Amino acid sequence: MDNGLFQEVPGGVTAPKGFIAGGIYAGIRKVKKDLAIIVSQSPAVAAAVFTTNKTQAAPVIVDKEQLSKSSQMRAVVVNSGNANACTGEQGMKDAWAMVDATARALDIPRGEILVSSTGVIGQFMPIDKVLPGIAALAGALTQDGSHDAAEAIMTTDTYAKEIAVRFSVGGVPVTIGAIAKGSGMIAPNMATMLAFATTDAAIAPEALQHALRAANRVSFNRITVDGDMSTNDMLAVLANGTAGNSVITPGTPAFQTFQAALEYILIRMAKLIARDGEGATKLIEVHVTGAATEAEAEQAARAVANSNLVKTAIHGADANWGRIIAAVGYSGIDVVPERVAIGFNGLPVLRPNYEIVLDEAKAKTELEKENISVNIDLHQGTAEARFWTCDLTKDYIHINASYRS
Amino acid sequence: MDNGLFQEVPGGVTAPKGFIAGGIYAGIRKVKKDLAIIVSQSPAVAAAVFTTNKTQAAPVIVDKEQLSKSSQMRAVVVNSGNANACTGEQGMKDAWAMVDATARALDIPRGEILVSSTGVIGQFMPIDKVLPGIAALAGALTQDGSHDAAEAIMTTDTYAKEIAVRFSVGGVPVTIGAIAKGSGMIAPNMATMLAFATTDAAIAPEALQHALRAANRVSFNRITVDGDMSTNDMLAVLANGTAGNSVITPGTPAFQTFQAALEYILIRMAKLIARDGEGATKLIEVHVTGAATEAEAEQAARAVANSNLVKTAIHGADANWGRIIAAVGYSGIDVVPERVAIGFNGLPVLRPNYEIVLDEAKAKTELEKENISVNIDLHQGTAEARFWTCDLTKDYIHINASYRS
Repeated sequence: MDNGLFQEVPGGVTAPKGFIAGGIYAGIRKVKKDLAIIVSQSPAVAAAVFTTNKTQAAPVIVDKEQLSKSSQMRAVVVNSGNANACTGEQGMKDAWAMVDATARALDIPRGEILVSSTGVIGQFMPIDKVLPGIAALAGALTQDGSHDAAEAIMTTDTYAKEIAVRFSVGGVPVTIGAIAKGSGMIAPNMATMLAFATTDAAIAPEALQHALRAANRVSFNRITVDGDMSTNDMLAVLANGTAGNSVITPGTPAFQTFQAALEYILIRMAKLIARDGEGATKLIEVHVTGAATEAEAEQAARAVANSNLVKTAIHGADANWGRIIAAVGYSGIDVVPERVAIGFNGLPVLRPNYEIVLDEAKAKTELEKENISVNIDLHQGTAEARFWTCDLTKDYIHINASYRS
Repeated sequence: MDNGLFQEVPGGVTAPKGFIAGGIYAGIRKVKKDLAIIVSQSPAVAAAVFTTNKTQAAPVIVDKEQLSKSSQMRAVVVNSGNANACTGEQGMKDAWAMVDATARALDIPRGEILVSSTGVIGQFMPIDKVLPGIAALAGALTQDGSHDAAEAIMTTDTYAKEIAVRFSVGGVPVTIGAIAKGSGMIAPNMATMLAFATTDAAIAPEALQHALRAANRVSFNRITVDGDMSTNDMLAVLANGTAGNSVITPGTPAFQTFQAALEYILIRMAKLIARDGEGATKLIEVHVTGAATEAEAEQAARAVANSNLVKTAIHGADANWGRIIAAVGYSGIDVVPERVAIGFNGLPVLRPNYEIVLDEAKAKTELEKENISVNIDLHQGTAEARFWTCDLTKDYIHINASYRS
């Protein structure tokens, strides 16, 4: 990817200068890496967004308190295998203990550490395993540790998710990198899954927060696997200025480029999460055009993306457009069904006034592909939105009927 | 069932006096009965509620027009196998043709016929098969034809749904009966699946409509199979006064009894539909208590009942209460998670302040039963609501990945 503005480069959170990371097995899960740390080697500013679920995990509460006191953050410690959610006072103690252990091991003020957890809800953290794990991992962080960190935050994910892009700010090369995990309980709304981005850009804290919110709105807030919003969703970005560019401030051309690069990264991550939804075999993009407003386009796209019936039909390569128009109809937007046109991967199947132009054989060929775009034109205006999801399969049932076992 | 107010009696829509019905195979589906007619032998008043989906099937549009002109209705003609939705002008012509054919065959004014369809969206009605079917069926209606009618309206339902109750109005025995179908695309909201009730009670039209709306609110509006709202949902009741009671008017003890009996029937029907959701093996009742308002109780219960993760966990007999509290958390109500208590079939698993009292073995025994009650106490007030759904299984995927085939 090189669009003239920025180009993709190998690696994830350690691709930007001045970041080290790592991931190890600490004994929280039965097998598989389960503990990750990402550290900036010099002072950095942070921005983050969190789940809007009223049931919030202990690490989410801790991080909000940390960020309310300072935007200066140096490190993120993350575990998989245990969400530390619905764990009451003990859970809060455990989350703070993780912060303190990381601060001690890295010799960083405790006010500059974020903590994040993902896994089963309602079980106490095996803190006697986590704290020694943090001490061991902190001494083993490296400049190519991003992949280990990406693996350590996975739960039912089937592949690690990392990406980085490089661009120029006033002639100075700047990099943004990220890792993320998703899989189930995916329906972020004003929040997201676990995702961590780093950048060596020098950027003002308010500019960083602004860019993060804007990019999040069109990426992680536009994916769904099962319509279930997590208690632990978070997306955080650390910027340490090591690249040496002049500080990026809002409203400048440099900010536009930074924003575009961050948006590119987060959308790529969001699509990787949707494609890797539990049991998924396909990535589905719902692209609503011709809407009166972007909000209505998003609302219609969300309803279609959340429809179990649409997702099972696409799993079966069945061009059942009736389920799509039904979902648009109950989405709550002010739609005129007679005006709606529907296609798959650009192949029209329904034109306005219910003119059916479905060629079953051609549609089946498109729907048997791994990447499906559902094209919905409302013919009511010029606004549009994209939303991503996956197909719903028997494996989703299999995975979730025995998740805790 | 005999609660002193009313008792259950055999049969469905032909249990009340003065109603005949029937169901036949007309050739709309590959096999299985697919056409039903219910007729009052004397003038009757009707009340109905319809889907709030913006995409409305032709028969829904026709019935709304019919009822806007008169509350006097004599017959309902229903087909399965074809929804006559998203079929444009041709669909409207076909729906009116079904009305006209029924009127002719029964020698009833066309203004007194309701029409209803269920099945695949976006295909034209095979009207050359439907119209001769109506003519044939109209001559074969009987006083014990309710079961045939109940079978003829089934789609992926696995059993026919009918029920009747009898009670007394001023010493006069009065009966209400009903049939219904459900299975998939079940998430009624201010509307319902296909359900038809009859009564020989004499009741004022406004009292009938009032009772129907109130009973519908706590029955069909409180079930979900997959969160997908249909384009064809409807619930209609015909009352012909043949019982000879004095006319029931709102606000009287007789109205209270009528309302209670209708509510009992519709809740029973709603639960039968939830239990028979596509691929289901269990009926799940979500019972939220201790809410600040009934609306909040319903909203929380709906979120839990719609959660794919909760439904797959219960399918696997997994006491994963974390998914339940997560769903309550994102339901949008003003919940305090620390106050929430959760149980299964009355067995506590979570007490307030996240005190976990889960006995895995006992919980598994409860969750392996066919009927599961999920007890959620918000400890915020005294309001409550019940909501019904089914477990989510691999068979749901199997059925819906190839529904049109």
